[in-house]
Amino acid sequence: MSYTIKDVAKHANVSIATVSRVLNGLSGYSKATEEKVLQAIKELEYQPNAIARGLISKKSNTVGILFPEVSSQFSAKILRGVEEAVHRLGSSVIVCNTASHGQRTMKYLQLLSEKRVDGILFVSESITEEFYKTLDSMKIPVVLISTESYQYPFPFVKVDDKHAAFTATDYLVRMGHSKIGMLGGNKEDLIAGQPRIDGYKQALAQSGLPINEQSIIHSLGFSFKDGFTGLPKLLEQSSDLTAIFAASDALALGAISAAYKLGVKIPDELSIIGYDNLPIAEMAIPPLTTVAQPLEEMGMVATEMLFSMMEQGRRVESRILPHCVIERESVKEIKPI
Amino acid sequence: MSYTIKDVAKHANVSIATVSRVLNGLSGYSKATEEKVLQAIKELEYQPNAIARGLISKKSNTVGILFPEVSSQFSAKILRGVEEAVHRLGSSVIVCNTASHGQRTMKYLQLLSEKRVDGILFVSESITEEFYKTLDSMKIPVVLISTESYQYPFPFVKVDDKHAAFTATDYLVRMGHSKIGMLGGNKEDLIAGQPRIDGYKQALAQSGLPINEQSIIHSLGFSFKDGFTGLPKLLEQSSDLTAIFAASDALALGAISAAYKLGVKIPDELSIIGYDNLPIAEMAIPPLTTVAQPLEEMGMVATEMLFSMMEQGRRVESRILPHCVIERESVKEIKPI
Repeated sequence: MSYTIKDVAKHANVSIATVSRVLNGLSGYSKATEEKVLQAIKELEYQPNAIARGLISKKSNTVGILFPEVSSQFSAKILRGVEEAVHRLGSSVIVCNTASHGQRTMKYLQLLSEKRVDGILFVSESITEEFYKTLDSMKIPVVLISTESYQYPFPFVKVDDKHAAFTATDYLVRMGHSKIGMLGGNKEDLIAGQPRIDGYKQALAQSGLPINEQSIIHSLGFSFKDGFTGLPKLLEQSSDLTAIFAASDALALGAISAAYKLGVKIPDELSIIGYDNLPIAEMAIPPLTTVAQPLEEMGMVATEMLFSMMEQGRRVESRILPHCVIERESVKEIKPI
Repeated sequence: MSYTIKDVAKHANVSIATVSRVLNGLSGYSKATEEKVLQAIKELEYQPNAIARGLISKKSNTVGILFPEVSSQFSAKILRGVEEAVHRLGSSVIVCNTASHGQRTMKYLQLLSEKRVDGILFVSESITEEFYKTLDSMKIPVVLISTESYQYPFPFVKVDDKHAAFTATDYLVRMGHSKIGMLGGNKEDLIAGQPRIDGYKQALAQSGLPINEQSIIHSLGFSFKDGFTGLPKLLEQSSDLTAIFAASDALALGAISAAYKLGVKIPDELSIIGYDNLPIAEMAIPPLTTVAQPLEEMGMVATEMLFSMMEQGRRVESRILPHCVIERESVKEIKPI
């Protein structure tokens, strides 16, 4: 049989209110009382009903996370970090796949609101006015991951995209390359688009290298397919490139596949550096040199920020996590002419 | 301001109990009453509190899913299908990463029990007696994905592992190969281990080809690394192989990388077929021919089975979903000698 809070109170010889206070970590009872209650809970193998407890504490011990595409390696790595931290902190995580679709995102925000989640993690996408209004009306903490908002005051966790793109391009310069192209993603993307292009240009400028718009390809997105179709176009526009900075690992892998088809040897004839350090980077042939984002750590840090906000009831500072170059075998050092 | 169920009742001029019945989809009111209540809900922009509603209906409108490794492409694809179906059915999904760790799995089962989830999806792992006892005590439906239990009566969704391994090996035979090796994963794995080895052997036997234990490598797991270290061992044991069946795409990609290091050309000198059809298969160089498991569909079907069980209160039939060979470029057709 399963016992109720009433049974626990009777067994411990205290009031139901006292058991409830102990269960919810409130004050107002002695250490001895607490021990009696915990002993009774143990003896009866009493399992507090989380739903009922949520109703008392006004907490659901659940947080929601919204991904544009839950099946990507990028999302999966972030989710790993979030899941780890959320469970460590005694809560659970509800996963929503928005497919980058505004209406679907709104539907999920409604659902999370109805579920009374204690906080929301919002990954990669831009915050629209509509999203903001709904999030604001929910009166719960929100933390952005791998994105940020200039208009709305949500704290975020990300790497510095411009700086990381600078680091990647500068790495190619240091390896002796001077004809460096870029495979960009969607340049309309406020976070991963223009800032990475700016970082690439700044690295060239700083080394006194010319910036040539013909050496940049803008794709629709950041996918393998975009890289696969982008590389031939880029080499047609700028046939003398010796190295390429790809704005995502998926773009880089697509480019490597296209190079393989074209008979262009990586890294002997063309060096490529990626961005993200997804598990696929390690599996590429040759293994892909890339700028690493610490995705799991970003998930963990964002979760900890969210819980700080829940407990302290005030905003926390945004966090820029460090990026670094992971050297593998897709970039060749060349002697300057 | 936010309205309560009381306000809705007053506005619609019905009792609170009637509003509750409408909200929970119960019978006992006329069509006209239902319309009045829905109209009042709309006019007041009333949002039923999901926690309170859960308490009334004894449903939390939440299901839990346990993965051994949430950040793998395999899990991510299944989660995509589950998430899609769960949201379509008006519920949410809580994600748990067990790290294939018994104690951690038990902790999560406790947590899901406390949250009063309506059902549980259990992916890839074996059901131990301890897991079974806890799952059984929860008195909620459980569906297994990509695993099955001979001892415990949980319905499952998977492909037929032995048959799929047979199909992969038989494909190599049909492409003219007669010296076919196998890169196996962990042979202790009751689902993905021995059945895939059996399927490989049966395909060889059926074509009158000899079975040679030296042509099979058993690894610790099914990872890229296992394939990377496994291929050189396999070629050392059996130097005359012209084709290999790898028991996972990750194993196959590891083998392709090892072949690249060894200077063995794929598919010209060695053909490889994988198993799973993960997104990485398409990105391999050359793109990997593989036996596809319909992972997203498996996630959807399992979710639908779970909801059928919740509604009907009885067990549903297990489902074996079809597998198929996806032809890409890692297998070469050779003329029989």
